[in-house]
Order: sequence, then C-alpha cells, then structure tokens
Amino acid sequence: MNQTGQNLYKKAKKIIPGGTMLLSKRPEMFLPEMWPAYFSKAKGVNVWDLDNKKYIDMCIMGIGTNTLGYGNDEVDKAVIKTISNGNMSTLNCPEEVLLAEKLIEINPWAQMVRFARTGGEANAIAIRIARAATGKDNVAICGYHGWHDWYISVNHNSNGEDLTNHLLPGLNPLGVPKSLSDSVFPFTYNNYEQLEKLVNTQDIGVIKMEVERNFKPENKFLERVRNLATKKNIVLIFDECTSGFRETFGGIHKKYNVTPDIAMYGKTLGNGYAITAVVGKKEIMESAQETFISSTFWTERIGPTAALKTLEQMESLNSWERITYLGNKLRQGWIDSAKRQNVNISTYGLSALSSFTFDHKDSQKYKTLLVQEFLKKGYLASSLFYASYAHNEKIIKDYMEIFESILFDINKCNKGILNIDDLIEGPIAYSNFKRLN
Amino acid sequence: MNQTGQNLYKKAKKIIPGGTMLLSKRPEMFLPEMWPAYFSKAKGVNVWDLDNKKYIDMCIMGIGTNTLGYGNDEVDKAVIKTISNGNMSTLNCPEEVLLAEKLIEINPWAQMVRFARTGGEANAIAIRIARAATGKDNVAICGYHGWHDWYISVNHNSNGEDLTNHLLPGLNPLGVPKSLSDSVFPFTYNNYEQLEKLVNTQDIGVIKMEVERNFKPENKFLERVRNLATKKNIVLIFDECTSGFRETFGGIHKKYNVTPDIAMYGKTLGNGYAITAVVGKKEIMESAQETFISSTFWTERIGPTAALKTLEQMESLNSWERITYLGNKLRQGWIDSAKRQNVNISTYGLSALSSFTFDHKDSQKYKTLLVQEFLKKGYLASSLFYASYAHNEKIIKDYMEIFESILFDINKCNKGILNIDDLIEGPIAYSNFKRLN
Repeated sequence: MNQTGQNLYKKAKKIIPGGTMLLSKRPEMFLPEMWPAYFSKAKGVNVWDLDNKKYIDMCIMGIGTNTLGYGNDEVDKAVIKTISNGNMSTLNCPEEVLLAEKLIEINPWAQMVRFARTGGEANAIAIRIARAATGKDNVAICGYHGWHDWYISVNHNSNGEDLTNHLLPGLNPLGVPKSLSDSVFPFTYNNYEQLEKLVNTQDIGVIKMEVERNFKPENKFLERVRNLATKKNIVLIFDECTSGFRETFGGIHKKYNVTPDIAMYGKTLGNGYAITAVVGKKEIMESAQETFISSTFWTERIGPTAALKTLEQMESLNSWERITYLGNKLRQGWIDSAKRQNVNISTYGLSALSSFTFDHKDSQKYKTLLVQEFLKKGYLASSLFYASYAHNEKIIKDYMEIFESILFDINKCNKGILNIDDLIEGPIAYSNFKRLN
Repeated sequence: MNQTGQNLYKKAKKIIPGGTMLLSKRPEMFLPEMWPAYFSKAKGVNVWDLDNKKYIDMCIMGIGTNTLGYGNDEVDKAVIKTISNGNMSTLNCPEEVLLAEKLIEINPWAQMVRFARTGGEANAIAIRIARAATGKDNVAICGYHGWHDWYISVNHNSNGEDLTNHLLPGLNPLGVPKSLSDSVFPFTYNNYEQLEKLVNTQDIGVIKMEVERNFKPENKFLERVRNLATKKNIVLIFDECTSGFRETFGGIHKKYNVTPDIAMYGKTLGNGYAITAVVGKKEIMESAQETFISSTFWTERIGPTAALKTLEQMESLNSWERITYLGNKLRQGWIDSAKRQNVNISTYGLSALSSFTFDHKDSQKYKTLLVQEFLKKGYLASSLFYASYAHNEKIIKDYMEIFESILFDINKCNKGILNIDDLIEGPIAYSNFKRLN
C-alpha cells in the first residue's frame, strides 16, 4: 500500500536533510512508513497519491493554506492567465499595487504594505521595520513566528522561558548567533503582568504576538497589551499568518476590536500560492525606506495575482463564516463522539483550525491508530482538522462515523479489552509541534 | 507617454514603502517620471507596458531571472500542468525530490539539498546550516548576499570595511540588532592576505563569497581560499544565486575547478518562477536536522516544477554558452562603438550580465540620456544588458545602431557642442547599486 510515495520518501531523506521543507509535513508526524507522503493531484477536498489512490483530506489542508479548497477554479484561472501574460519582467507587476490597496481597505487602521513569499520572511520584515522605527532591538513575543535567527535566538537566553510553549520543546538554537541572546523575550498568553514586567525591565521596543491560538483572551488581555504598547511607545505587531481570514475578512483582531501597528498575513492569502504581506501604519512602515529590504522573487506576479482573486472569492463567499461553522460542527462531533464512547479528549484552536488530544498516557498511540484506520478508509486524517470551503456536512457526517468506530476500539483499549499495541501496524507517529497539533 | 504606469507608480509610493519590492526595479533607477514602471505582458524579449506599448528588453531581463527569455513555452506548460493538478496539498510534492536529485547530478561534490523561494532565504539557510555545522558564529563574506540581519549587520561593525563595495554605499543598518556587530567581516575580492588575516584573528567558521562578479580571480585566489578553508576547518560557501547557469550548467565555480562545501542557486533556476536552492556536502547539510528551518510556502509545487523544466531546457539548449556569446557580442559592440565615437567607457561583469559606466563626471546624466533615447525607440535599456536565449544577433545589431547614435551625441556633449542638460527631458536617474550596475 502506498509504496511509491514511501519509496520516494526514503530517497528524499537521503538527499534532503529532514526529508521535507516543512516539519509539519513529515510523513512520520502522521504514520511512519505508511503515510502516502507525496501527492500527484489535489482538487477540492481530495488528494491523490503517487499510486493514484484518492483520499479525502480531513487533516491539515496544505497546512491551512487552502481555505477555498484545493485548486479553486477562479484562483487557478487567474494564475494561469498571469502565466500566459508573463510571470516576471524588468518592470513591476501592477497586481502588487492593487493587492496593497485591497489589504489597506481590509485593514483601515493601516496605510502601507510590503510583500514577501513566505511567512518567515514576513515576520523578519516586520521585525526589521519595527526595530528600525523604534531604534530599540529588544522584542517581546508570544506565539510562533518562523524559523529566522531573531526568533530562534530566544533559546539562547540566559534566563527565563524558552520557545517550548511557542514553537516546540527541546529546540537547540544551533547556528543562531549567541550574541542575539537576551534580545527577544517570550511571554505567556493572557499573562499581562509578565509582559508588563518585561516591558519595564528589558527596554522592549516591539511586541509581536499571535492574537489568538489555543486560548481566548481573558480579562481584556488584548486591550491591555494595546494600551501598554501605546503608553510605552512600543510597536505592536499581530502575527496573523495563521489566524488571518479564519474568522473575519482579515485579521482575527477585528473580532476583538483591537488594532496593531503592523499585521502579517500568510497562509490563507493566496489559497495555496506563495504570498505573504506585512501591513502597517504609515509612520512605522516608512522606516522600511531607511533600511535594506529587497528580494528578486518578491517581484514575481503569481503571488499577488492569486491573493487578489482569493480575497475576491473569500469576500463573495464569506468563507471565514463557513469554515468556522464547519470547524465547529466537526469539533462538536469529536466531543459528542468521545462522550458517547467514554474517551477523554481535549479540543484546541480556532474553530477552523481545530485539534484535539487524547487525555491518556497512550495518546500518541491512539493518534497513530486513528491515522492508520482513517487511511485504510481513504482519508488523510489525524487529530486535527483545518476546514475549507470545499468541505461540507455530508463529508463531516461520513468522517464522524469512522471516527466513532475508532473511538469504540480506543475505549476498549482503555478498558483493557483490546491492546493498542496489537492494533497499531507500524511505528508510532512522531510527536508533532505542540503549536500545530 | 506611459502615463498609466507612472500614475500607478505614484499611487504605489504612497502605499508601498520604497514603491517596489526590489530596489533594482525602482523606476527612478532608470528614468524618473518616464520609465513605464509596470508591465501587462512579457514574452520572449518583449515587454508590454500598461498602455500596451511594446518594448524590446535590452536591460535586466527580470533582474537576470529569465535566461530562456520571458514566458518560455516549455516551462510555462509544465507550470500550468502543475496548477491543473494542484499546487499545494497536505502531502509533499514529488518534484522537490526530483529537483534535489538533478542538482546533485549537476554538483557531484554535493549530496544534499534544501529549497527556499527567495535568494535572501537561501543565503540565510546556508549561513544557519554552516554555523550549526562548525559551532562558530563568525563569518567572512565577499559579495552581495541578501537583506537579512546576519549580512546587513556588517555595517554595525566597530572597525574595518563596511558593505560599500559589496552591496551599496552609505547603508544604515537600521533595525538590525547591534549585538550582531563584529560577527560578519567583509573581505575584498582577490585580497587573499586580508582574508587570511581575518581567519587568523576572528575565529571565522564560515566563508561565504561570490565566485566571480566584476573581476576575474587572480593568483589562484579561489584555490587558495579553498585550501585555507580546508586547512582551518571552515565551511566554504559559494553564493551562485546570481552567477549560476550563466557560464556553465551549474555554478561558475565549475569553470575554475574549485568546489565549495555549500552553494546556493537562485535567479536563473526557475526562469522567472520563485525557487532557490541550497546544495551541499552531506556532513554539513545534515546539521539542518538539528536546527529549525521550516516554512509553509517552501512546499508549494510551482517552484520545483519550473526549475526541473528550466534545467532540462538549459541543458538541451546549452543556454549558458549562448547567453555568454550574446553578452560578449553586445559588450564588444559597446567597446567598439565607444571607441569610434571617442567616448570613454569601462565594462564590468560576467559576459551574460554585462554592464558599463561612462568614465566622465556626467556619467549619470549620460546614462539618463541613454535610457531616455532608447525608451523613445521602444527599448528598455540602460547601462547594462542581461542576455537571454531569446535575444539574437539581429536584435543586438539594431540596438547597437541606436546606441552609437546616442554616443554620437554624448561625444558632442563631451566636446561642448551639445549641452547634456538640454538633452535630458526629465530628472536624472538615481544611482543604482554599484553591484548591479
């Protein structure tokens, strides 16, 4: 089963360190030795592997990039037209200006925009601009903000919290200059006092945070962070690379009526095409003019083309409402099913980026069984579901029937009637990022 | 003339700090207020502006990305097929493994590959991996290596050379942490003694350099750098983002028979589609497994698709020989024409990335006149020519006739018969990057 993909992956691990370009797409994160690993085709909610076997994606949907589903006809048509007209030239593409205008319309507190092609870049651009604007190097962060030195340097810090609860535990900051230690300081979500103390002791010039991931803001946390930043002349950055366009037409900060000085958008912006944006207030963004931020491939035309059409589609479909509805529906399905089957689970994340954990010492084994059994039935599924507009109630209903049958067996494992080790047919799934699982 | 593009650019400057994503594509670098700024279409050697006026590109050809010409049919067909099959999914794209294999075949000294989507990223990945492999933070550099903190930090250094001769003069490292100062040290091309002194005094773990840009290596410079790196256990990185596939099928280091430990490829790799690669020796590249280097959009499928087909096309056409021939031909045309017209110029760069300067106090004005007059005749042209396979002798011949007629006038200016200020119809072109001009 799925041998072509696994055979290719064996080759990949020999010539690509880590096997893939994204930790969250490592086959071992799902089902070692059996996950199909590679796709030949993707359309709507379906993915075909290299043996042309068709799956329904009830999993990470391209790590949350494709909220309109795979291969959205309108977006693809616009991109193909751009290719026919030429993707690159000595002149610039007009689409980037139109996209900047649209993003300012969506973020009325902002007046200027820069584009990149990856989320890590957008995060690095925002930090450069913010540091340039304030003249201060020290940053307070809360959340996942990419792979670049400025962020990973947290794990060089002499004291205090590391990136365990923001990125992943036990990360060695190998290859990141040690001189960057004690320049970026993490704070815990909803812990205003911790942030305030950081600001008062570390000459913080920039606060960068995810607006909401696994927990809701409590005690007016976001408003208090905003007020602190304003009072102390700190640039407040909301990293909306993951949360953007999941619950509002724009940042999730709209839901809380709290505005940053800079926001980044990423994953959802181009429905699977590479485009990310840094949106901000004019007086801060203008600092980009006084420092060198420039890259050849930021001028290619597919990114802005895809983003313009994706925004148009999202706006006309109210896609964020639909994916929130579908995510909630499936999450409630998990909860109800778990209750019926006497299995303890905890759920996390935005509705459209729902995940759960089994509250059990064998949780990783249970998860492995779940992936394994779903895969046999033609599903890419794990303990998380990133909703897209291409999903629907019927798909969720069919999925839930299988889910409950697996929980039925897991309950038997809990009771000692079945042995989980007998049910798992291969190695156990590797622990995922806490933040992405 | 060209009002639509300039009008859009006026708007762009209000909402995009710096107006464009790449300094080298700023209209002011060519002809302020008159450069068409934006394209609607590009194909072969032709670019159409927003008023549908057609130009011949005798200029930077997408800043050197499109060595096969704009809109290569084979590459575009492969990309469109990938779009029809889906650009993104929860699984990985097999093309990245095939591309890694191909790049190892082209670089037989290397065994492993990582991909990114921009040159700045590829440079930052290479530095992270090399620092991780050596355990040392200090780097010696020679050349242009992107916009990231690690590189721009040179301008914070307490002593010694700044980035004037590697990137551009007078660059304020605003927003780059000051703690990074004295971690990256520039050395002058062909100055082996300077590099050796750096290595002996600064605990250098990594040497990153462009193999060749404006000057040829002298006195076995490259071999001596290689030997020094080997002797001192230093990771030697050749940044081939600009030079790759211009003179060989692979890095320009092939020409000199000197191999690095890591090489990056960029601009030419996907013929205008965003894809960059870090290629290296297994024992060094494996360090990527021990540090966090991961990004969502590095998993999109267009990049590797375009690169695979571009490599196939380049290989079957021997494109690097053709563009070197055409670059040489045009450069010789400049030299001969300048001689005939008694105008002093100096030429620079790889043959396929030829440039010249007027050796005169009014050089920037002369360059402005050149751009202005060529533009009137339907050419995007300046004091540089990036050759593509879509160019040919007839195009060069026609171009040279206009070139010589402009030099005829410049000679009159030199002699005081004409006044350059009377000939220029708008503002003078801004000074370009020294390194790209």
